[in-house]
Amino acid sequence: MPDLQPSFILVRPQMGENIGAAARAMLNFGLSHMRLVGPRDGWPNPRAVAMASGAAGRVLDHARVFQTLPEAIGDCAHVFATTARSRDLTKPVMTPERAMEHARALCASGQKVAVLFGPERAGLENEDIARANTIISVPVNPDFASLNLGQAVLLCAYEWGRQGANTPPEVLELAGTERAPAIEIEKLGDHYEERLEEAGFFFPETKAEGMKLNLRNLWSRMPLTRADVQTLHGMLRQIVRRRDR
Amino acid sequence: MPDLQPSFILVRPQMGENIGAAARAMLNFGLSHMRLVGPRDGWPNPRAVAMASGAAGRVLDHARVFQTLPEAIGDCAHVFATTARSRDLTKPVMTPERAMEHARALCASGQKVAVLFGPERAGLENEDIARANTIISVPVNPDFASLNLGQAVLLCAYEWGRQGANTPPEVLELAGTERAPAIEIEKLGDHYEERLEEAGFFFPETKAEGMKLNLRNLWSRMPLTRADVQTLHGMLRQIVRRRDR
Repeated sequence: MPDLQPSFILVRPQMGENIGAAARAMLNFGLSHMRLVGPRDGWPNPRAVAMASGAAGRVLDHARVFQTLPEAIGDCAHVFATTARSRDLTKPVMTPERAMEHARALCASGQKVAVLFGPERAGLENEDIARANTIISVPVNPDFASLNLGQAVLLCAYEWGRQGANTPPEVLELAGTERAPAIEIEKLGDHYEERLEEAGFFFPETKAEGMKLNLRNLWSRMPLTRADVQTLHGMLRQIVRRRDR
Repeated sequence: MPDLQPSFILVRPQMGENIGAAARAMLNFGLSHMRLVGPRDGWPNPRAVAMASGAAGRVLDHARVFQTLPEAIGDCAHVFATTARSRDLTKPVMTPERAMEHARALCASGQKVAVLFGPERAGLENEDIARANTIISVPVNPDFASLNLGQAVLLCAYEWGRQGANTPPEVLELAGTERAPAIEIEKLGDHYEERLEEAGFFFPETKAEGMKLNLRNLWSRMPLTRADVQTLHGMLRQIVRRRDR
């Protein structure tokens, strides 16, 4: 099974800078198949190249250019069209999330998928959308919708990447240390309890048990690393040493 | 309970245009609390205003400006810091997805949340990040990571919006029509079967049953609207009429 990914097709893009920016946005999320339909300023476009440095330049080098949309989507089994406003066309409308989920399923079964993005000024024509299977509409604030071409490309690419990423949703970045095991937390608690006992902290007697429990709970609630535990021991030792001098 | 949403804090932003673009990106997903720490070119900034038209201008009008980060986050119970590269700091690192899920839970329990975005050139300093509770890192292509300030703001705002949206993931946009009920599909099938029978389409006899079954299945597999059904009846009637003239 080939490693299929959707082609992002820029339909009649106007500004070279936006073509370059689209290539960068795509590549951030591992997408490298770009197609262009009738780019206004011809192709290749030096402004697009200037915008897309490094690896994104190679996305442009490999971009396939077509004169018409039907040629550009000829080999695609499913075509998504991104639109901002609603059209008077009967068609399923999906969120980017659902659309990229669908695209992943199609690609996994070996089918070619395209996502269309319209020109900067007015977006796709109804002519173009009539050739798509499904509409993608980003659920934006109905009182303020202002996504531009680059942002639409970025959000679709992000959704593709998000759904395929095996990035854990949450990790603890440890700067050369590791989480302290319970035995170290226990000894830390002992150390503080002992010194605080000496200092007469647990007063009055009737409340001492409760105060000690709260303190044990505080230590174990903290996500302490072994380095943190050493720091906390060291702080206490130093304070006691100064006091006793 | 107040309708809490996170404040997006731009730390030492350089270009006014990017401040305006951030306001627009936020408002697309219903976020309107912006704070600024030491904007390079002072405040208010006419370039920011020029970039943020309409309602996004009001986000800038209400932006709160601070001299230092500790002042800007003083009232926040949880602070997220967006970073591109890994830092030598022990800290939980979350995807935007997980972070906004966490932010929603915090806001729902009445706590103020901030998300920090660093200056364009180099991002947040370790000084800044040390004051955050959690790091947000967008899982980008390790071989090509090039998200800028506006894109980081957009993706975090999108995640906030996506998780809170009650947009159905998929709807059928019907241009003044509705899905055809089964009885209409049945009658459509009858009409075609009848005319095709007359035309000698179901041949040879031994295969007729299977061919009819496949045709019935084709009609019911299509997501036809009542308007589609009328079109299909009309097409057939017209072809038969021409043929019989």
